[in-house]
Amino acid sequence: MKRTLCILALMGCLVTHATAEEGMWLLNQLTELQLEKQGLKISVTDIYSPGKPCLAQAVVKLGATGEIVSPEGLVLTNHHVAFGAVQRASTKGTDYITSGFLARTRAEEMEAPGYSARILDKMEDVTRRFRKFKKIADPVKRGKAEKRLMRSITDKIEKGHPDLEAQVVPMFRGEQFILYVYRRFDDVRVVYIPPQAIGNYGGDIDNWMWPRHTGDFSFLRIYMAPDGSGRAYHKDNVPYQPATWIRVAREGLSENDFTFILGYPGRTYRYRTSHAVQDNFEHVYPRLIQLYKETIELLESFQDDSVVARMKVAGFIKGLNNGMKNYQGNVDGMKRAGFLQKKQAFEAELQDFLKKDPGLWKQYGDVLPAIGGVYKQMAQTRETDNVLSMVNRLGGTMASLAINAYRTAREREKPKAERDPLFSESDVQRRIKRLRFSLMSFYEPADKALLKRLLMKAGQLPEGGRIQALEPILKDGEKGIEAFVEKAYATTRLKDLGFVQSLFTQSVKEIEAINDPLLQLAARMYPETEAMRKRNERLNARLEDLRRQYILALKARSSSPLYPDANSTLRFSWGEVAGYEPRDAVRYAPFTTLSGVMEKETGKEPFVVPEGLKALYQQKDFGRWVHPDLNDVPVAFTHKVDSTGGNSGSPVFNARGELAGILFDGNYEALTGDWEFDNDIQRSISVDIRYVLFITEKLAKANHILKEMGL
Amino acid sequence: MKRTLCILALMGCLVTHATAEEGMWLLNQLTELQLEKQGLKISVTDIYSPGKPCLAQAVVKLGATGEIVSPEGLVLTNHHVAFGAVQRASTKGTDYITSGFLARTRAEEMEAPGYSARILDKMEDVTRRFRKFKKIADPVKRGKAEKRLMRSITDKIEKGHPDLEAQVVPMFRGEQFILYVYRRFDDVRVVYIPPQAIGNYGGDIDNWMWPRHTGDFSFLRIYMAPDGSGRAYHKDNVPYQPATWIRVAREGLSENDFTFILGYPGRTYRYRTSHAVQDNFEHVYPRLIQLYKETIELLESFQDDSVVARMKVAGFIKGLNNGMKNYQGNVDGMKRAGFLQKKQAFEAELQDFLKKDPGLWKQYGDVLPAIGGVYKQMAQTRETDNVLSMVNRLGGTMASLAINAYRTAREREKPKAERDPLFSESDVQRRIKRLRFSLMSFYEPADKALLKRLLMKAGQLPEGGRIQALEPILKDGEKGIEAFVEKAYATTRLKDLGFVQSLFTQSVKEIEAINDPLLQLAARMYPETEAMRKRNERLNARLEDLRRQYILALKARSSSPLYPDANSTLRFSWGEVAGYEPRDAVRYAPFTTLSGVMEKETGKEPFVVPEGLKALYQQKDFGRWVHPDLNDVPVAFTHKVDSTGGNSGSPVFNARGELAGILFDGNYEALTGDWEFDNDIQRSISVDIRYVLFITEKLAKANHILKEMGL
Repeated sequence: MKRTLCILALMGCLVTHATAEEGMWLLNQLTELQLEKQGLKISVTDIYSPGKPCLAQAVVKLGATGEIVSPEGLVLTNHHVAFGAVQRASTKGTDYITSGFLARTRAEEMEAPGYSARILDKMEDVTRRFRKFKKIADPVKRGKAEKRLMRSITDKIEKGHPDLEAQVVPMFRGEQFILYVYRRFDDVRVVYIPPQAIGNYGGDIDNWMWPRHTGDFSFLRIYMAPDGSGRAYHKDNVPYQPATWIRVAREGLSENDFTFILGYPGRTYRYRTSHAVQDNFEHVYPRLIQLYKETIELLESFQDDSVVARMKVAGFIKGLNNGMKNYQGNVDGMKRAGFLQKKQAFEAELQDFLKKDPGLWKQYGDVLPAIGGVYKQMAQTRETDNVLSMVNRLGGTMASLAINAYRTAREREKPKAERDPLFSESDVQRRIKRLRFSLMSFYEPADKALLKRLLMKAGQLPEGGRIQALEPILKDGEKGIEAFVEKAYATTRLKDLGFVQSLFTQSVKEIEAINDPLLQLAARMYPETEAMRKRNERLNARLEDLRRQYILALKARSSSPLYPDANSTLRFSWGEVAGYEPRDAVRYAPFTTLSGVMEKETGKEPFVVPEGLKALYQQKDFGRWVHPDLNDVPVAFTHKVDSTGGNSGSPVFNARGELAGILFDGNYEALTGDWEFDNDIQRSISVDIRYVLFITEKLAKANHILKEMGL
Repeated sequence: MKRTLCILALMGCLVTHATAEEGMWLLNQLTELQLEKQGLKISVTDIYSPGKPCLAQAVVKLGATGEIVSPEGLVLTNHHVAFGAVQRASTKGTDYITSGFLARTRAEEMEAPGYSARILDKMEDVTRRFRKFKKIADPVKRGKAEKRLMRSITDKIEKGHPDLEAQVVPMFRGEQFILYVYRRFDDVRVVYIPPQAIGNYGGDIDNWMWPRHTGDFSFLRIYMAPDGSGRAYHKDNVPYQPATWIRVAREGLSENDFTFILGYPGRTYRYRTSHAVQDNFEHVYPRLIQLYKETIELLESFQDDSVVARMKVAGFIKGLNNGMKNYQGNVDGMKRAGFLQKKQAFEAELQDFLKKDPGLWKQYGDVLPAIGGVYKQMAQTRETDNVLSMVNRLGGTMASLAINAYRTAREREKPKAERDPLFSESDVQRRIKRLRFSLMSFYEPADKALLKRLLMKAGQLPEGGRIQALEPILKDGEKGIEAFVEKAYATTRLKDLGFVQSLFTQSVKEIEAINDPLLQLAARMYPETEAMRKRNERLNARLEDLRRQYILALKARSSSPLYPDANSTLRFSWGEVAGYEPRDAVRYAPFTTLSGVMEKETGKEPFVVPEGLKALYQQKDFGRWVHPDLNDVPVAFTHKVDSTGGNSGSPVFNARGELAGILFDGNYEALTGDWEFDNDIQRSISVDIRYVLFITEKLAKANHILKEMGL
């Protein structure tokens, strides 16, 4: 606890509670946390011990997180994590999003195309192998050397083991390197997903909000080849048999109970400086909020075209809404907390500290001003970069495919020294296999509108920041843009999956010879996008190195260990079940209830309660799943574990290491938590395992699932 | 307590608390409430005893409510109650709404034109004098006879006493008649009104909401003639010297403390039947919400014309917003609570009860069906009536003045038997004096737009419900309407105050001879508006009589006394300081704080914090005004006293009868409280006297006011 308190003090927070639960800790840091003093009732080696059965082995990386809850590879995760699978299955005709899906037998379990489950096999600190690169002064060159070694380490492990996936992940911006080896299973199937009216109850309105009443869970299953290896969907595959699986808590959680999670948090910025805060707070977030808002409105205008159109744009809208609310929450939170001023004050204080020690001052005195300098440089090409980077997603699927196919060919033909060290043909192969998912959500009218909008924005760029490759299209204004887009979509062959797949194996020359307007546009734009990439590569390499030095300066000031920023590696967080006070005179309790589900019902999306659930509520048919103090079925709860996006689906354990819930969100008041942890208001939101089992048993009548879980 | 519980049970509520604070009690009912058992620490005779000094004498009827807080007639009331006075003064040039106003000397105290203070002199049950009318079978005739007696009683009292105002008020829909005599003081002046950024902090967004951070208070002063009588503003007038004035509480309130209020609640519908609920829930409220919304949008479109335009439409918009939110809250609340179904179930139960007693069944068995019958009849002319009734306010000032002037002349010339028994020349005289206020908020472009909109709506009426008098204007559609309105406003003399005043003394013939398009329209519409009035008079008289019988049926079922519906007479309510749970997992605390004011600040209206207040907050310069448990200045609090519109400005007393706050609002969740009291969620919202004094002392530096209050 002492060390976490120190970090808070270091980050300039006011600590008002006796316990502070900050930190997404690496599994090899657990022994330093004195968790038994915090309330943990099992040994930390039960959570993680290399090479031995432990809870970490039952945690699944699924994009987000999932957990194995039966000896036959049954996985619990969020509804929104499995949503994509169900969306893909639904486009075939049946609307599983609305009605939900339940497999009553193994045979009925439905393929989740594109889903892979990764299970951690090994974690190893390989920092000493990278030490030799420290003497390379040019950060771009050093970065490339490091990446080449990373690739060579992982290639060696993966070679001949198609179901192994290795990753060397830099921690503390490259001060430490950790090797992760996963076993990958590409055959994941859907067992039970509740209807959207439960799994996404409250929809985008309630997203990020507390109090919450979403039954955000689903059951998947991992399948393996009969020999135990991972492979793609195959009729002969059998359920995965894990070394460890997680048991459901015998008793539900109550307020103040100790909890911990294991999961794959995506990205945090806990060690960023005021310059990054200012850049995001004043430019990046406001711009993206506006851009996403426009994009959502644009996509929504196509929603009523047909059921298929709705399905195709639904996922994209959902993602944009999620992002937009996140950014808005960040802006609101930063403003409310006077975040920028606090960061600046903290940095001034740090500089004062460093100044007192000539050695430290010499080593780190210039770091903060230098970081500011890089941000200034980056700002100069901001406008043009913004438009160019829209091509990747917000300019439509077609343009994105064209640009990526062309860039792949270019990268392949570069001299080795110039090529991206992480480029690999096996990655390209994997990508080719996934291309069909890009085309699945392709809806031509919306796609065209996105490209038109991108071109309109390019047309508004000021002199000096124009994208030369686009000028021929832009010179006649909106009319010219319209004409280009209409013609391009009428003639392009990029809608043909086979054609697109073939592009990723062709040479630059071959692609350039194809008479396709979008491919030709991609080739024409390449020099400018490449120039942007190179410029950013250089600036980012410099920035990463400065950030590493900044963290070293922080370490010099603190005697306690730090945890590295989240980066989609397996982490441990802990914290008690607790409500919070979002604002003056308002207190949120830590549990919501089934009564609250009924209370929110309006009969209109996203607040429609299924008839079956209403009947259970009216008959008070709650079974074993009642919270004794509330005399009601608990639906969701808030707790103090430190989490972020990617933690979705994380198992929530009680002090005995039993499953008490599934994490699915963070609260709106603490969206700035990615930048700085605030123990007073930052909460994770999890669905209570009692609600999961209540719905599964009473509404879905899927007793076979409960039985498999040992209930 | 027993009796209030009984009422709750009677009204079909679930009683879950040990204490239930329902009831707006007449002052002569206090002895029946066993208030000492509830926590009252003074005698009920200290609150009210006829002819003796008591707190009731220090309560002022001001439209809403105010209270006398010094021996020299200083009155505390709400900011929003004094708003009109300040708005009127502001049109002269200085924007006191924004900056506030403080008189440092008596001489600086500013006239509050149009404000009158009424102080209760006498209250007497005169029911026995009305008993003889019971034998009149025709309810219209009976009603007229009653009204004639009411007028004759009050005329006798008022005659020769221009500062006395008498009223006979029917209670329980005419089962009881109570005479109230007030002393009226027409010279009221503004002493201190805080800037809008305090007095209306949160504006329409926070209106009806909790948690609330509005310093909704202002100080006025009553002036009298040197001989002690009330009279209009006069330079020789002197401050009023009350028999009793209210002392400020020595200790502030805390959670669970006993409080009571005295005030003039306007209107409740606690004894209405399911037919009224259905009519309002399904027709009246939804229509008014829509109509007010449109009207606000229309008025807002003129707001940016000029500062004067903004001032002129501000008050109207404020009132419409207030009404709209109220109606919406009612609809939401009725829906949430399944209100209609509950009422219907309760009535079915009542019928069962009556059926068991042949005597009761004979007497009351037909009452409920008969009420339903009247509502059905009323529904038949709903559409036309709605448009016709818009003329009174929502068709613009000009049309309203024309219609009212013409109707006054018509009423005067009716045979006595047909004339409205409450019609009196002295009322007309009073009205003439107030006409200038109608013209003060007249803004021609907005006024024209309102009349056009009214005519457009008339144009949409279906065949059979058309207003014949308007057909000549409507026959050419929008173009004809435009032309009529433009010409009418270009030529009418109704903008001239003297002209309008003269109209109210002229005969029908004289008015009809005037060549003014709006007066001619009024004359043309008269037969139809008069037919509507007569139709409604008949239906309402019948309905009132049935409602009276319904209450008698309720009384027959209950052994405990009932309180009559609110009707702008002085009432007593009590209840403890308490927060509430607005929805699942959310609990509202009963006090807000100065920190919460700062927390809400956005820098944009209505959340701008004055610099002076910010400085006080930063310096923690709270003086004596800190809530010891919160270690902060308390701003507002919620308590369980039963209140409604008109109670605004009511003194909130602690158990010792000392002033602890000023009531200014009710909470949104309980807007249906006018229909049915719910002890779990209905709360009154009051500004804490500590905030009032903190602002007055620390921000306004008006120590002379505190000194006058004995502090």
